[in-house]
Amino acid sequence: MTFRTQLRYRFGDIDDAGIAYYPKLLHYFHCAFEDWWSDGLGRPYPKLLKEDKLGLPAVKLEAEFFVPVRYGDEPFVHLGVLRLGDSSVEFGFWMTRGDEPRPLCRARVLTAAVDMDTLQKRSLPDVWRQRFQAFALLEADFPRGR
Amino acid sequence: MTFRTQLRYRFGDIDDAGIAYYPKLLHYFHCAFEDWWSDGLGRPYPKLLKEDKLGLPAVKLEAEFFVPVRYGDEPFVHLGVLRLGDSSVEFGFWMTRGDEPRPLCRARVLTAAVDMDTLQKRSLPDVWRQRFQAFALLEADFPRGR
Amino acid sequence: MTFRTQLRYRFGDIDDAGIAYYPKLLHYFHCAFEDWWSDGLGRPYPKLLKEDKLGLPAVKLEAEFFVPVRYGDEPFVHLGVLRLGDSSVEFGFWMTRGDEPRPLCRARVLTAAVDMDTLQKRSLPDVWRQRFQAFALLEADFPRGR
Amino acid sequence: MTFRTQLRYRFGDIDDAGIAYYPKLLHYFHCAFEDWWSDGLGRPYPKLLKEDKLGLPAVKLEAEFFVPVRYGDEPFVHLGVLRLGDSSVEFGFWMTRGDEPRPLCRARVLTAAVDMDTLQKRSLPDVWRQRFQAFALLEADFPRGR
Repeated sequence: MTFRTQLRYRFGDIDDAGIAYYPKLLHYFHCAFEDWWSDGLGRPYPKLLKEDKLGLPAVKLEAEFFVPVRYGDEPFVHLGVLRLGDSSVEFGFWMTRGDEPRPLCRARVLTAAVDMDTLQKRSLPDVWRQRFQAFALLEADFPRGR
Repeated sequence: MTFRTQLRYRFGDIDDAGIAYYPKLLHYFHCAFEDWWSDGLGRPYPKLLKEDKLGLPAVKLEAEFFVPVRYGDEPFVHLGVLRLGDSSVEFGFWMTRGDEPRPLCRARVLTAAVDMDTLQKRSLPDVWRQRFQAFALLEADFPRGR
Repeated sequence: MTFRTQLRYRFGDIDDAGIAYYPKLLHYFHCAFEDWWSDGLGRPYPKLLKEDKLGLPAVKLEAEFFVPVRYGDEPFVHLGVLRLGDSSVEFGFWMTRGDEPRPLCRARVLTAAVDMDTLQKRSLPDVWRQRFQAFALLEADFPRGR
Repeated sequence: MTFRTQLRYRFGDIDDAGIAYYPKLLHYFHCAFEDWWSDGLGRPYPKLLKEDKLGLPAVKLEAEFFVPVRYGDEPFVHLGVLRLGDSSVEFGFWMTRGDEPRPLCRARVLTAAVDMDTLQKRSLPDVWRQRFQAFALLEADFPRGR
């Protein structure tokens, strides 16, 4: 099972070439990550950060941009869990449009579980490890571009 | 005396109409406010916030957009102090291009001096009141559009 | 009748004081304007711009910030039409949280109808003038802060 | 020779964890790319896009985040050319602080030369190929984190 949310690509998130500015595409992936916490896991990310003092900052990312995203697009943004380490989680994100399965862009984002008071690495709590497993994404199922 | 900084209008700060997205113009005014603290007053705003626990959040603003700003523009952003109250400061900001004195846009931004630990209003310290007076801007000198 | 949409305030739309960066609040008002076109009027704003060559850029705005917006807030953003001129439309926007009717912030935004090929002022088409009247907002009903 | 610019990390480019929101770090790398065109090559990127109809959109990127960037930092952003293909250019970007040579973060960004009228791939003009060679960065000289 992977998580899917739909987001409106916004008027001000365009660059002077008339297409999506790629740092904004990564912002949309982060929005999908936040929606996954709220709607997929039932624990809003702000509560995780502030009450549970647990955060998942990115330490590494790889992104590929296959097809330009434009203003007016309302892409589906998908999230799956590619790898689960002791204190690291690698997510796969991709965007699709309408019924077209081929992605517009995708990213793998390696995050580290950290204590929010110290920003130091910690083990991912078992409760989340188990919940995350339901969103496992096999490498073979992480959609490629053309 | 008013303060002036020059900023590059950036590739990703454009909207789908090919001109500046106006929330970004307000961001550029805030950047000029930060540059004024660093370069005009010699006290970087992050230090004011964190060490002196003093902040100046906006409580009200009025902005007018006269001429579109485009990618490639490197506008001058000007700042002056329109009014000084006990715990409030009203700033005037405007942008110009090249030698042309008429502004592309302008804003008056009313800020409140607050204690950063509580976000409650406090008096503006005298040391800053005096320094700010050097940047006084008469209403008559706050440039209007066409 | 006024239009209402609900938006998630995002992790990256915060400033270093830990509250909403006000240019981002104006971005959220613009997002609500875009949602109004899609969901309130049934004509997505990108189609209006590109197919009908009609746009409504801001020429003037006044904003007031009453209560800080924080990460984790999912504010309602409201829109009404305060004034309709021949080629100008003034919108009122405000944010509320939960059942609390008092606004967190509000803005009046004066826009000019323009031809998107020339960015020159034009009359607002009658079809939109009539549709906009359904969203009329009396000055007395535009919520004030404390 | 690599190119270096200094940028002020801004008040509104922070996330709710109080550190740089990583899509904004990629925005700062893009700002350095724009500064390189203006200040390193003497041809502002907007002129390249609009007059020469040549653009270099990102098709792939890999980024690593080693040390949090905070408000108040005024990082140096460095750019070098890692690889030059017929129609592709791979850039290396990294940020440093003060005299400390170890990077706060880095990214390799693969771009494709495109015709801006069609967004189709084209060969990189020889004049730029030669100019870019002056900024060649050996893989061994692309700074790693700890």
